[in-house]
Amino acid sequence: MGLAFTSDPAATPRSAPKILDATRDLLAAQGYSTLTIEGVAAAAGVGKSTIYRWWPNKEALVADALAEVFRAEEIPDRGDTRAEVREAVDMTIRNYANEDLAASLPALAAGLLPHPELMARFRETFLRRKRQNIDVVLRRGMERGDLPPDLDTELVQDLWAGAILYRRLMIGSPLDDDLAERLVELVTHSPTAALSRRPPASSD
Amino acid sequence: MGLAFTSDPAATPRSAPKILDATRDLLAAQGYSTLTIEGVAAAAGVGKSTIYRWWPNKEALVADALAEVFRAEEIPDRGDTRAEVREAVDMTIRNYANEDLAASLPALAAGLLPHPELMARFRETFLRRKRQNIDVVLRRGMERGDLPPDLDTELVQDLWAGAILYRRLMIGSPLDDDLAERLVELVTHSPTAALSRRPPASSD
Repeated sequence: MGLAFTSDPAATPRSAPKILDATRDLLAAQGYSTLTIEGVAAAAGVGKSTIYRWWPNKEALVADALAEVFRAEEIPDRGDTRAEVREAVDMTIRNYANEDLAASLPALAAGLLPHPELMARFRETFLRRKRQNIDVVLRRGMERGDLPPDLDTELVQDLWAGAILYRRLMIGSPLDDDLAERLVELVTHSPTAALSRRPPASSD
Repeated sequence: MGLAFTSDPAATPRSAPKILDATRDLLAAQGYSTLTIEGVAAAAGVGKSTIYRWWPNKEALVADALAEVFRAEEIPDRGDTRAEVREAVDMTIRNYANEDLAASLPALAAGLLPHPELMARFRETFLRRKRQNIDVVLRRGMERGDLPPDLDTELVQDLWAGAILYRRLMIGSPLDDDLAERLVELVTHSPTAALSRRPPASSD
């Protein structure tokens, strides 16, 4: 099952599935802030010490629980840049529309900021693979001539994921088809100088 | 001082300034997740019951502490759309670059999601006034003919604030001049169909 945040990533405790299920159930029911290791132990029917044997703290436990439901898969070559770009946007929307992940992922990231080593593992697990797979889609579009050759693919992903996260967490507006189509249009139709790798100052 | 999240918004406890200072100091030092009312009371030199008399819970206390440092001011008419748009972007960047706010604001929002009444006050305090003042800037630019007349000002603000929040919280990359200029370009140069109020499907 590939636990990434345990004290010993090579080993997998037999009780891991029920501990991680209980963690997700409690996250969905009460949110990240008030979740405790004690509460997870009680819900999973294991001792607190069992959890602490495998996960150093609440942040690491939550990260492994969320990693199992986070979507970061490869998007196949469909010979259709627009369709592939829409799949990339939809994958990002599904992650933030997921009740387990929506509020807990940014709360977890905020909780990890004071722990650089765990934050590095968080970025590796939750961001790097997803971003690499979406980067492949954008580069295929550039090679086909469907997207501008100097597209800043990092900025595109920051705008997509940022707008989706912000709407879900701060504004509370729906992550609907209209939003998805606008985020697709942002890169597939007349991209602006803002999305070019060239420094923006030179275009003034 | 306009406390918005107390149990009695008409009253202001004399000890409020030192309680709110202590809250911000602890947020900056240890983050939102592990902050407790007990810890704030000890740091401020007041009793726990004094804090609970005025704030119903940790979320409300943190919201008032952050509201005092959150920037949401009006941006004056400078007769220069690009300069005013840059001021709007810079105000948003300053909020997320602020050490007190950067990680605590999204963690607070996540903590408030299960409390609709407090979440509504959060949106009123932290989002509505800032967004209205930035909306005025974008509408002045539209009236001057510098920005397209059908600009979706809500989406523009979601893209701006989202990219800034995402970079600060998830990616950890700098909120620098290059990012600010790109976010300005996004609306001032050749905006795409994505940023129009027209449904994107009709442009296909």
